[in-house]
Amino acid sequence: MLIHEYIVAVDWGTSHLRAFLCKVNKDTPLTLVDKANSLGVNKVIHSFEQTLFDCISPWLSQYGKVPIFMIGQIGSSLGWKETDYLPCPTKLGGIAVKGVNFTCAGHDITIIPGLSCRLSNDNYDVMRGEELQTLGWLQQDTQRFKGTHLVCLPGTHTKWVLIKEGKVELFKTAMTGELFDLLTNHSILIKKCDSTFDQPAFKKGADFTLKSELGSFTHGLFSVRSKQLFGELTNSQASSYLSGLLIGSDVRAAMNAEEWNLPELGEVSIIGAKHLSQQFSQVLEIHGIKTNMCKVTDMTLLGFNAVYQQILALPSQQN
Amino acid sequence: MLIHEYIVAVDWGTSHLRAFLCKVNKDTPLTLVDKANSLGVNKVIHSFEQTLFDCISPWLSQYGKVPIFMIGQIGSSLGWKETDYLPCPTKLGGIAVKGVNFTCAGHDITIIPGLSCRLSNDNYDVMRGEELQTLGWLQQDTQRFKGTHLVCLPGTHTKWVLIKEGKVELFKTAMTGELFDLLTNHSILIKKCDSTFDQPAFKKGADFTLKSELGSFTHGLFSVRSKQLFGELTNSQASSYLSGLLIGSDVRAAMNAEEWNLPELGEVSIIGAKHLSQQFSQVLEIHGIKTNMCKVTDMTLLGFNAVYQQILALPSQQN
Repeated sequence: MLIHEYIVAVDWGTSHLRAFLCKVNKDTPLTLVDKANSLGVNKVIHSFEQTLFDCISPWLSQYGKVPIFMIGQIGSSLGWKETDYLPCPTKLGGIAVKGVNFTCAGHDITIIPGLSCRLSNDNYDVMRGEELQTLGWLQQDTQRFKGTHLVCLPGTHTKWVLIKEGKVELFKTAMTGELFDLLTNHSILIKKCDSTFDQPAFKKGADFTLKSELGSFTHGLFSVRSKQLFGELTNSQASSYLSGLLIGSDVRAAMNAEEWNLPELGEVSIIGAKHLSQQFSQVLEIHGIKTNMCKVTDMTLLGFNAVYQQILALPSQQN
Repeated sequence: MLIHEYIVAVDWGTSHLRAFLCKVNKDTPLTLVDKANSLGVNKVIHSFEQTLFDCISPWLSQYGKVPIFMIGQIGSSLGWKETDYLPCPTKLGGIAVKGVNFTCAGHDITIIPGLSCRLSNDNYDVMRGEELQTLGWLQQDTQRFKGTHLVCLPGTHTKWVLIKEGKVELFKTAMTGELFDLLTNHSILIKKCDSTFDQPAFKKGADFTLKSELGSFTHGLFSVRSKQLFGELTNSQASSYLSGLLIGSDVRAAMNAEEWNLPELGEVSIIGAKHLSQQFSQVLEIHGIKTNMCKVTDMTLLGFNAVYQQILALPSQQN
């Protein structure tokens, strides 16, 4: 017997709230019924409660008191209720159980915790949100619980997640997307102009990174301007070139990371928006690394399905 | 016989106009009589002419039609009159002669050209303004016309200038200061709070760069946030740590540059604002490199003195 017919799954990050109405099935994973978007954690004007319920109220009117599961920055110190960072290495199998549970307007809400890890260079790293897509990715193919894998989740911050025998061993964050936004909107590198993605300029940026000495990122960045001055790049190509330079640096750092050996792993799974994933894929393939592109919504739903199954498996939930 | 008793020297960059009223001496370099500041090239609201003459009008009222020499972005495509980039390797001895001369409100104005160079990684680099301080630095000690030297000019963009036998051989730009401003004002790394320079946090940032794998800049940047989350850095220390991280990366790239061998050179001369120069000096000394700090105004005046002597030496100027 099913406890619920529907659940609401919410990926609530810094910039966006993405809500999914899902149907619970007996022997198969959750299926997507409807989607809705609203403001990210940093942009909420009134309360988190109002923002959430304004966004999903049509579903609640129709389906009543469905349980709500949330991940992302909504569980940070700036969010609604703060959840822990589970220290790596960790299995994701019990992550939902370590969430924060509360009731709001008669709805049971669970916020899933984030992950933290300590790297060899005396550095911490943290994530909130990407652990769910990683969990979904593991669920998609049980073979992935064996061996060592690297998952790349590009976005505002790229997360490179190392999986060993089904555990998240560690991960690294690169601020690639945020740097792209900052340099595009606020630096002397990019002139405001209409520009569409320019594949040859992107490739030129990625190639430039490869040809430069390792560790010359801040020196190489100025090439975005100097190549425009010398007619090697038009103003409208500069943005795609910058993107190639930044993604090139990010991938190159992953190629040189001491925590894993990318050529030995043989393949990287990429979970992200389609166009951005293609850009990472292209640069990884320049380095001779095969990629497996996964749809972010599929991984999110598989992740929430696993979370829901974890909650169902709790003794208190047994009928 | 002296042709002029006074000249006005103007260092007019992107962010600031810095004007100097200088007395011409018979057998010794220019001496500084007065200083005045105004808006940089990017900030000029009315005309360049009005901005300049509003700034220096008290001097002109007193001393009449003095010649005006200018360097910096005022000679760029966004400036008043565009001057060339002289390609390196080049001596700076004839730079004034290649400037753009024009008359405005009865004053003879000369804008000094910039420099360009092509680096081994198929990259161009350009400068406008720092060539004058470099010229001044060469003038300060004639021994510097012999051998190989590296001059570091930190600022919005750091310029690393390689001098061989009195010629500017090549140079490299790092966007260190601009990245610091962007990341401080617009990123998730730094919370707005009162903070003064924190020496231990700066050192921690510089050390972090040294301990990290080469080429991991975009990955390491996120440590500014994660160290705050884990209590290793207070919010008010984060800015100094970020500064250490960025200057650490800049210096490390210079240590690894294939165009020169820093340990063999033995010493780097630094020309910049005092506090920033001290930060670069400190990180270079962590790497075992001695530094020689030079006052930027002294180098600017020595540079303008050399420019003025070049103009005087022209046949048309001989009495």
